Amino acid sequence: MLYLIGLGLGDAKDITVKGLEVVRRCSRVYLEAYTSVLTVGKEALEEFYGRKLILADREEVEQEADNILKDADISDVAFLVVGDPFGATTHSDLVLRATKLGIPYRVIHNASIMNAVGCCGLQLYKFGETVSIVFWTDTWRPESFFDKVKKNRQNGMHTLCLLDIKVKEQSLENLIKGRKIYEPPRYMSVNQAAQQLLEIVQNQRIRGEEPVTEETLCVGLARVGAEDQKIAAGTLQQMCTVDLGEPLHSLIITGGSMHPLEMEMLSLFSIPENSSESQSIDGL
Amino acid sequence: MLYLIGLGLGDAKDITVKGLEVVRRCSRVYLEAYTSVLTVGKEALEEFYGRKLILADREEVEQEADNILKDADISDVAFLVVGDPFGATTHSDLVLRATKLGIPYRVIHNASIMNAVGCCGLQLYKFGETVSIVFWTDTWRPESFFDKVKKNRQNGMHTLCLLDIKVKEQSLENLIKGRKIYEPPRYMSVNQAAQQLLEIVQNQRIRGEEPVTEETLCVGLARVGAEDQKIAAGTLQQMCTVDLGEPLHSLIITGGSMHPLEMEMLSLFSIPENSSESQSIDGL
Repeated sequence: MLYLIGLGLGDAKDITVKGLEVVRRCSRVYLEAYTSVLTVGKEALEEFYGRKLILADREEVEQEADNILKDADISDVAFLVVGDPFGATTHSDLVLRATKLGIPYRVIHNASIMNAVGCCGLQLYKFGETVSIVFWTDTWRPESFFDKVKKNRQNGMHTLCLLDIKVKEQSLENLIKGRKIYEPPRYMSVNQAAQQLLEIVQNQRIRGEEPVTEETLCVGLARVGAEDQKIAAGTLQQMCTVDLGEPLHSLIITGGSMHPLEMEMLSLFSIPENSSESQSIDGL
Repeated sequence: MLYLIGLGLGDAKDITVKGLEVVRRCSRVYLEAYTSVLTVGKEALEEFYGRKLILADREEVEQEADNILKDADISDVAFLVVGDPFGATTHSDLVLRATKLGIPYRVIHNASIMNAVGCCGLQLYKFGETVSIVFWTDTWRPESFFDKVKKNRQNGMHTLCLLDIKVKEQSLENLIKGRKIYEPPRYMSVNQAAQQLLEIVQNQRIRGEEPVTEETLCVGLARVGAEDQKIAAGTLQQMCTVDLGEPLHSLIITGGSMHPLEMEMLSLFSIPENSSESQSIDGL
């Protein structure tokens, strides 16, 4: 049996009781290490689970899935994913491969950022399509995702923006020379995402469109589910400078029309430093 | 401290390790019993947690929240919610009351239907606004939610339909006479939801609109996260008769355009009985 097990969002103890029982009895346990991270590392998980974990990077899961699935028809193999196993499409691929090999699979679900963002008080059912914001480079500055933000706002829906994670990336030079030397991991902050968004807002304005402005109400979230999680509600402009600390960060662009209960919840998290700006939350 | 703890979707062991530790040391533990249910009852939870649970119905949470919060400033109180605590807005209300009373709170997240539906292979980020389908009566047959389904489909987004739950409802007669006699709980099945939807589809057609038809690809899900979960992919027509067994059920109306990986995953769950109809999955 192949078990896909969600680890939730905080630390080692966010696994479910059912998930932990399975981890402890599987013959091999893989840890997927490229779509998200917990606030603790592999060693802390190994200690709490009492099991050695095999790190599986993107390359391995996509190209060597057969290694992961080896003997899973006669023994139990666990594949651990931060959040819920079906946040990333890569894991559908693993399920499909298993099924083709006649290996049964089971999913042990957990919280993912897709549902845990509800903790900021915005109503989950009012979220539209989710977007991903990638790190811009000098030559690659994609804006196409912004169409989805516009569509969501036109329909009064909030947009969850998942922020880029760069793990085990090679520099162009190392890639060309075939050197397996990797850059340190990078996690996009709410500040970086907001700065990129502001550039897009300005480009839109040149075209005469203003679906989102500097004053649009946003919510920045960091380390959701961890004890030191931080949530900040304020304008897009404020998101450029708010200090949310360590990764992972996520950003919500609100849908404009808000339920009174949503506003009241957001006011718990309004950025205090500049009262004239944070009034935008009450005034919206 | 007020702890809002998600129980996940299956049985007693779907609580997180962190959640279980908190439950075992709180002075009072409430179980919210009106927005969702697990596949096991209160007694099974009490046995596994080793704690007595106090059932909290909607009336109590909404009108007697102060009882729940009593002494939570000097002791720990847990409020258990099937799925994740922020699926229902009622729980925002509890957080706001706690905050006003100066009681700190913490959320221990878990899987909810909002993210666990990813197990059918449809990509979570492509879901639009979520809708609720309520039981129609002879005199009350609301169709307004269908506008959201239309909007989602126009934008290529899937729609998760949460199906009605009637717990602790009084008959009109008992309500008028002030008798606290309650009807047995009712949970809407995928069959019932699909039949109501087909009526709406026919009404739309009279008005010359066909955003959804009998042939629209849907996914029915039952007991997601439980060992005996069932998923069936097929046309809306097929959803009227597919047998998914015991509650809880959910229904997805797909967004039309589908990624090949989504199609391949759905084909694992296609309804086999009538091959000519289930071909619609491959042919879409």
